[in-house]
Amino acid sequence: MNGAQALIRTLVGCGVNTCFSNPGTSEMHFVAALDAVPEMRGVLCLFEGVATGAADGYGRMTGRPAAALLHLGPGLANGLANLHNARRAHTPLLAVVGDHATYHKRFDAPLESDIDALAGWMSAWSRRSARSADVAADAAEAAAAAMTPPGGIATLILPADVSWSEGGEPAPALPVRAVAPVPQDVIGSAAAALRSGEPCVILLGGPAMRRPGLAAASRIACAPGARLLSETFPARIERGAGVPAVDRLAYLAEFAVAQMAGARRLILAGARAPVSFFAYPGQPSSLVPAGTQVDVLAADGDDVCGALESVAGLVAPDAKPQPQEPVRPALPDGDLTGESAAAVIGALLPEGAIVSDEANTSGLWLPGATAGAPPHDWLTLTGGAIGQGLPVATGAAIACPERSVIALEADGSAMYTISALWTQAREGLDVTTVIFSNGSYAILGMELERVGAQTTGTAARDLLQLSRPDLDFAALAAGMGVPAGRARTAGEFAAQLRRALAEPGPHLIEAVVPPIG
Amino acid sequence: MNGAQALIRTLVGCGVNTCFSNPGTSEMHFVAALDAVPEMRGVLCLFEGVATGAADGYGRMTGRPAAALLHLGPGLANGLANLHNARRAHTPLLAVVGDHATYHKRFDAPLESDIDALAGWMSAWSRRSARSADVAADAAEAAAAAMTPPGGIATLILPADVSWSEGGEPAPALPVRAVAPVPQDVIGSAAAALRSGEPCVILLGGPAMRRPGLAAASRIACAPGARLLSETFPARIERGAGVPAVDRLAYLAEFAVAQMAGARRLILAGARAPVSFFAYPGQPSSLVPAGTQVDVLAADGDDVCGALESVAGLVAPDAKPQPQEPVRPALPDGDLTGESAAAVIGALLPEGAIVSDEANTSGLWLPGATAGAPPHDWLTLTGGAIGQGLPVATGAAIACPERSVIALEADGSAMYTISALWTQAREGLDVTTVIFSNGSYAILGMELERVGAQTTGTAARDLLQLSRPDLDFAALAAGMGVPAGRARTAGEFAAQLRRALAEPGPHLIEAVVPPIG
Repeated sequence: MNGAQALIRTLVGCGVNTCFSNPGTSEMHFVAALDAVPEMRGVLCLFEGVATGAADGYGRMTGRPAAALLHLGPGLANGLANLHNARRAHTPLLAVVGDHATYHKRFDAPLESDIDALAGWMSAWSRRSARSADVAADAAEAAAAAMTPPGGIATLILPADVSWSEGGEPAPALPVRAVAPVPQDVIGSAAAALRSGEPCVILLGGPAMRRPGLAAASRIACAPGARLLSETFPARIERGAGVPAVDRLAYLAEFAVAQMAGARRLILAGARAPVSFFAYPGQPSSLVPAGTQVDVLAADGDDVCGALESVAGLVAPDAKPQPQEPVRPALPDGDLTGESAAAVIGALLPEGAIVSDEANTSGLWLPGATAGAPPHDWLTLTGGAIGQGLPVATGAAIACPERSVIALEADGSAMYTISALWTQAREGLDVTTVIFSNGSYAILGMELERVGAQTTGTAARDLLQLSRPDLDFAALAAGMGVPAGRARTAGEFAAQLRRALAEPGPHLIEAVVPPIG
Repeated sequence: MNGAQALIRTLVGCGVNTCFSNPGTSEMHFVAALDAVPEMRGVLCLFEGVATGAADGYGRMTGRPAAALLHLGPGLANGLANLHNARRAHTPLLAVVGDHATYHKRFDAPLESDIDALAGWMSAWSRRSARSADVAADAAEAAAAAMTPPGGIATLILPADVSWSEGGEPAPALPVRAVAPVPQDVIGSAAAALRSGEPCVILLGGPAMRRPGLAAASRIACAPGARLLSETFPARIERGAGVPAVDRLAYLAEFAVAQMAGARRLILAGARAPVSFFAYPGQPSSLVPAGTQVDVLAADGDDVCGALESVAGLVAPDAKPQPQEPVRPALPDGDLTGESAAAVIGALLPEGAIVSDEANTSGLWLPGATAGAPPHDWLTLTGGAIGQGLPVATGAAIACPERSVIALEADGSAMYTISALWTQAREGLDVTTVIFSNGSYAILGMELERVGAQTTGTAARDLLQLSRPDLDFAALAAGMGVPAGRARTAGEFAAQLRRALAEPGPHLIEAVVPPIG
């Protein structure tokens, strides 16, 4: 068989059976091979950033890599921003980047570029397959590399002639290294810190944000002086009624400093020491209070859940996890604002929902309003590269077809990868997209003040406004086959959200809200 | 003054007075400085690929760089594909990439990445400004580097604290190196080749595609045995009635081989030796006929127009340029197809129009139908990275506000950077976008056959279709404030195109055409 078929059969054998695709000429044999290997599902995306973001969402929900099929250097370039987010999320993800035939590269044809340089930017593992006979083994290694804890991006560069030449044979899946157990002395140190009686924050992140980790952490928090917080932008949080709750560290450094205040000990459990998202003149980059002792209980790739359970057994052997009480906001009346929209979402969020959250400033009230909703998953913007929310929702819906997916999306961010809506329509995905439409890059209006920039005219402020003309998201959605409406009051929003959640297939609601502040 | 103001004042002094912008927090002082330096025009783009493509279109039309303001590594990543096209076009272009404050980088905040690695991918020059006191001199050097023949991308990485700190002073513009004169012996060799009597192709490219170069080449073509062709995807061609015409080498290698057939000598005048766009099994990569002697008259950065004039003086001293006759197709009736749409465009193309051509397969008939239209400029997809056409049209319209701009755009390619329409609406640009809507990646349907890929089911073909659901470009345009219509017959298309060209401001026409083949 040819290299492409050997590659795809190998991927299927490794559990990689979904390929978010934006192919070109150099990938045509890969595409043709999808007919020969029906176990691999090809999902067409109209832009590479949708493909990579969808693979990120898929990987977050399944723990297994999806493939993203990209066309040469520019195709990889278009996919990089969401690969950056996936890298920060430690999502297992396999980027397959088609390249010119090996013998064609030296001719420097128009699409030629240094793909390897781009791959190095965000990959945990990358390789250029040299021969059809090698590509299957390369693919098996790539799949294992993507799955290696804590999870990462494996990039396989696939020359066209390696795809089309005969001589390929599928390769078996390789074993994947397990998470590393945390040594007893490290667990003992954390327990000693907790027993010291000094105020102690346990900062959770990564796999600790799932039920087992949260349950163990919740027990630890029963120890005197112990408090839980989590990283600001986790890849995936399990939360809601019955799940132990944890507050996320705030995006705004001044609020995060307040959350950390008083801590004398900081125990990192799958999270990194907190830093300011951006630098601000005169403000520190580190958010660790001065004089606080930092202990790493579990770093990336470590068995953070096992470590938390061990620590809990030492410091709170009899404590029980503290589940979140079921509580929902009442459905509000009146104006639609970020706050009332959050209440509507909290009131209606279905059990088992997956929320892809790129609401940015409009999302300020969401964590509070949804904390006691039925159990659900929450996926956040891990790397700060906007344009993640709609693609991640798309991939999550492919991964979990029986679950309701809700994308909560800022208007400016939505425009980066808006064509994800078309893929949702084509695949019939049960995704409800809420666009918080405030007509501005509201976060930048706020940041302009926070960095101390002085504006003296209108040119600067004009660059932060999404107005003249207003964007009409209902029209944009209709243009891509997604039924849509616009809500201007809390009541309209509730009615539309209820209907969208009840009907199968994708929907979009443009929630017209004022900018904050 | 702070670094940002010194930077912008320096750029203005270097003739860089337009900045296509998609800023973030780290660029807020740059944005604020736009109020202090009103000579710099900031143009908001909703996606970085629009900003970089617009800067490409601007640079092609003015010969001067525009700036593209990008946010950190992911912002640069989103702009890379159109920077790849700009690199292939030798467009002078200045990418300003904001970065974290110098002292903040080591904290590896979520948006941290290796910006320098990305900048190296497509830049002719790149530098990271280290201090506010240096940034103006760096900017002057960047502007000069972008302008250095043949033109290229200069990337200035701008840490936030270099922007916001005091101590900047504007720097004077630097002299820009002129094009390199072509030595007399090289001119003599080309003349000797032409006098040899052997069949000779002069392959034009780069600056040779403007009137002076075309005029000189046209005189040379009067020499016995001499023929003109041009590179397949020039950055900018001047053409139409009164301008000497030249056929472009075909995209499809088999057609290009036929065009080159019989040539025993090949003289490269601003073009590179022709190569196949992609590799195909069993087909050669080089399109130079076996046994053909290749002479380089002028390479990138050489004075190709001067060289052509010198050669013309030697081999055809008395010949006159052969201008294209004015001729237009009749307005067709009946079905709307790629062919009849081209005839409509040829019949109605206004004098002085600028055409941004990313029509792909639907554009097959455009060169013939527009050859004798009133003089106009034609901008092509230089690097093969789709999503160029709408941004390039946007930038060209900013550069040449008195001229009519027409974007001829394939449906699949349009979706990459569709938000360019919003910038056109906001800036009131006189751009008429024609979407050739054939519901497929038609070029891939063709390429699937040409690379010899065997399909045995429907999965592969399904990945090449833009259907289920159909895209509604009129709705998409309306969503971004651009008046739009849909044409299904040649008559409807002519009426809508005539109206769009007559009215100021942006318009979009969805021309529903069948896929070719």
